[in-house]
Amino acid sequence: MTPAEDLHANLIHRVNVGDSLTRTAARHPDRTALVDGDRVNTYRQFNTWVNRVAWGLLGLGYRRGDALAIASGNSAEFLVAYYACAKLGVVCVPINLGWRAEEIGYVLGHSAARGIVVETQLVDAIAPAARGDNAVVDVIVSPGTNADWTRPADGLRWLTFAALGDAGDETEPEVLVEDRDPISYLYTSGTTAFPKGVVGSHTAIYLESVTMALECRFAEDDRFAAVLPMFHTGQLNCFCTPAVMVGAAVHILRGFDAGELLALVETERITQIFGLPMMYRAMLDHPDLAARDLSSLRRACYAMAPMPDAQLKRCLDVFGCDFYLLFGQTEMSPTATVFRPEHQLSHPGAAGTAVVNVQVAVMGPDGSLLPRGEPGEIVYRGPHTLTEYLHNPEATEAAFAHGWLHSGDAGQLDADGMLWFTDRYKDVIKTGGENVASIEVEKAVYGADQGVAEVVVVGLPHEHWGEAVTAVVVAKPGAELDPDRLLVAVRAGLDHYKAPKSVIFVDELPRTSTGKIQKNLVRQRFADHYRQ
Amino acid sequence: MTPAEDLHANLIHRVNVGDSLTRTAARHPDRTALVDGDRVNTYRQFNTWVNRVAWGLLGLGYRRGDALAIASGNSAEFLVAYYACAKLGVVCVPINLGWRAEEIGYVLGHSAARGIVVETQLVDAIAPAARGDNAVVDVIVSPGTNADWTRPADGLRWLTFAALGDAGDETEPEVLVEDRDPISYLYTSGTTAFPKGVVGSHTAIYLESVTMALECRFAEDDRFAAVLPMFHTGQLNCFCTPAVMVGAAVHILRGFDAGELLALVETERITQIFGLPMMYRAMLDHPDLAARDLSSLRRACYAMAPMPDAQLKRCLDVFGCDFYLLFGQTEMSPTATVFRPEHQLSHPGAAGTAVVNVQVAVMGPDGSLLPRGEPGEIVYRGPHTLTEYLHNPEATEAAFAHGWLHSGDAGQLDADGMLWFTDRYKDVIKTGGENVASIEVEKAVYGADQGVAEVVVVGLPHEHWGEAVTAVVVAKPGAELDPDRLLVAVRAGLDHYKAPKSVIFVDELPRTSTGKIQKNLVRQRFADHYRQ
Repeated sequence: MTPAEDLHANLIHRVNVGDSLTRTAARHPDRTALVDGDRVNTYRQFNTWVNRVAWGLLGLGYRRGDALAIASGNSAEFLVAYYACAKLGVVCVPINLGWRAEEIGYVLGHSAARGIVVETQLVDAIAPAARGDNAVVDVIVSPGTNADWTRPADGLRWLTFAALGDAGDETEPEVLVEDRDPISYLYTSGTTAFPKGVVGSHTAIYLESVTMALECRFAEDDRFAAVLPMFHTGQLNCFCTPAVMVGAAVHILRGFDAGELLALVETERITQIFGLPMMYRAMLDHPDLAARDLSSLRRACYAMAPMPDAQLKRCLDVFGCDFYLLFGQTEMSPTATVFRPEHQLSHPGAAGTAVVNVQVAVMGPDGSLLPRGEPGEIVYRGPHTLTEYLHNPEATEAAFAHGWLHSGDAGQLDADGMLWFTDRYKDVIKTGGENVASIEVEKAVYGADQGVAEVVVVGLPHEHWGEAVTAVVVAKPGAELDPDRLLVAVRAGLDHYKAPKSVIFVDELPRTSTGKIQKNLVRQRFADHYRQ
Repeated sequence: MTPAEDLHANLIHRVNVGDSLTRTAARHPDRTALVDGDRVNTYRQFNTWVNRVAWGLLGLGYRRGDALAIASGNSAEFLVAYYACAKLGVVCVPINLGWRAEEIGYVLGHSAARGIVVETQLVDAIAPAARGDNAVVDVIVSPGTNADWTRPADGLRWLTFAALGDAGDETEPEVLVEDRDPISYLYTSGTTAFPKGVVGSHTAIYLESVTMALECRFAEDDRFAAVLPMFHTGQLNCFCTPAVMVGAAVHILRGFDAGELLALVETERITQIFGLPMMYRAMLDHPDLAARDLSSLRRACYAMAPMPDAQLKRCLDVFGCDFYLLFGQTEMSPTATVFRPEHQLSHPGAAGTAVVNVQVAVMGPDGSLLPRGEPGEIVYRGPHTLTEYLHNPEATEAAFAHGWLHSGDAGQLDADGMLWFTDRYKDVIKTGGENVASIEVEKAVYGADQGVAEVVVVGLPHEHWGEAVTAVVVAKPGAELDPDRLLVAVRAGLDHYKAPKSVIFVDELPRTSTGKIQKNLVRQRFADHYRQ
């Protein structure tokens, strides 16, 4: 085939996330796409804006395979940049605004980003990293329509997002992009020193969007509240890309405020919200709750952690809609299981069942799949699994061993096909020939004494036990904790082999930018605890 | 990457229609998958059967890229063979049971099928074609569990479908199959003598399944009645593959009988039916109608032709569920537009709006896209468009001109984005669910009687057939043509469904300035021929 024929065939039948916007703009040109403060864009306007920005990026020299970072809070510009990249085959690299400068610098270098879109108020924080040892040429200030920043003389090309769209061409930029071309590098804050770059293909993100639309029955007359950050795959790919696929409206919020969200649901007749369990708790506790009309809500989603049973029941009662709990990981783009409304009360504490595009299985140490009921490592397959870890064939090979994606989580499927997490796989402690789930011991420590503010349980090297179960505890201010008394109380509720061999008191625990406790750093710090 | 690593990555994130069965069997092992007479298979049993057959095919030497034809009425074996092929990357070639031996022979040769699955009662009809000048080695008699046939001594390898599954290995056959590998060659009767082979990829059929599941909101507790033939993409890919994707039950019927279908809806609590307009008419007219409980129906779909307004209203009233009209063509796998329940009464005569995975546009003769309201050729894009026409780069290039699939239909989009067909670019008549090339019938009319000076064959609106094949004839001066004798003579050389329903005599045919017969004017003039 000639290059022109290749392009024609590609345009006709490719899987491209940008095309899903093009199609929605063709089907529903006058439906509301984005509401960002008092700026409202229909799907025609959203698509036209994306095309203008894409032509602007082409003008700057961006081509298929180039990377463009985005450091921005939730905004219409975030999604415009994302879809402009998608249409060009340019790879979008969202910057987590919780990262330290050092991590941002690492990601800009590792992804070989040749530019970065930076929200105005982040310019001072991001500029030093952009100036570092990397391939960054362009800093694109978003929106750049006011004078809150000055163009530094630092050798970088500074321009504004507004100017980028000024080129004026509103036609579709028709360039060849393959189904498996990357659309994003999503860096995951692992518990190790630097994040890994999860390469997500157009096919993966497209099918993730399909998964959510099918599982949660999204429709063109849905109105979504986008509260959680778009730089997280949970907001971006569980909600924003599916909303665009079906033609729903996305109401963009810059952060969470319980009263503001409750008011928005009432005034905009929001049908779909997505938040963390604590956000629902804050709304339940808010004085405006009773006065707000929440009858437009069709469903509420949450992620990361189950909700306590009593809270869930109150939510079902007060919000009067279905609640879905989503589980997954960035490597799954991210949805792997959905805990459906009808199951959360019948199977409290579980993680739901596999979604339509994912197969969930449990694997033994030898790579064989285990029958239902047997514990092992949770593994996944499905078309929205990552392509690879960027520039990291060793990590990819390890994650893909035996032809399944290794989740790093321990758990099992019960007789109903319900998935149960027991712990992070690497947080399973191997002691005296037994496996101990640290989460179970942590629960026992919390229950043993009201004075425990926080605890992590880790396995520390031990001559006799291999790893010795060890509790690392932060006491509540003013609490008087006695290690021996605490240990006795903990042992009372546990199998003997699961009981901690000792307790260590600390003032605070190390955390990642997203708030996850870094157990590896705890293990490192106390690696010699049992060695004399 | 090593071959093992390639396979691992492929198994983890590929798009494969066979995997959608594997996943459903993992999620819903005990849900009913197939009901074929008194044989009921759960999804676990269906998947296990498919795996056994796949291992049987591997044992016979079938490998990725090989083609296997299927000549069968609706049966569990049809779907088992289809999914076994999908898991192996073997290409399934459904045989239209309305084809003449000559066409079957052509398709077996053109597709390079190395085997054919033949339903027992078709053995005598199919065997001669299988013995022709082609690559066929295996004839697999389905089900082959009785003694209705004898193994001929003809040099072919004769075996039974039952024996094929006897190999016994029930594990997943894990072989590398790429997203864009073909899953089927679907031969369409075009305007030329022999049908063209539409190459459908795994990605295309997978996303067609997604389209239907999203547009019609299929769910795991749906129960489908499969009446129309599975060798048509309409039954196979609008209903069977989506049903398997979501985990719905497929009740398999060997043909249409109004009373039988009405009874099935009541006894099996069927939620979804799909038929031609004439089938709904037959059910409306059936004496059992009033006595049957049809309250389980959620939706009824029909295809190929609009339903007369009065009939649609009566259907909505009597069946008490939503009615969807599907439009498309084999090249679209096949769905392009869905005429939604709320639009059929407000826009009678239209063809619906684009589905989620398809962009519909109207193109001028110079390849430019036309604004809404302007007539031109209807063109499509989207990930369930065909890969190519098999061994026919000229036809592919013509169909893909300007980067859009040319439908061969003329029409326009109105201000609401509603698609209207005005005429056919190609002269294919759609009658009773079959495509008939007018040129083939015209040849038969010319050959039937020396007194025919000129003939055009057109499809005219008909309550029962959608379009009725009709010959409009100019007699030679002095020739005495008897319409009934002419019809008998024409029928002798044609498949029954291609034969004209009537003959109209005229003095002359309307022509363009360049001498081309204006079929659209013929159609207009006789539009009411079958209406009283």
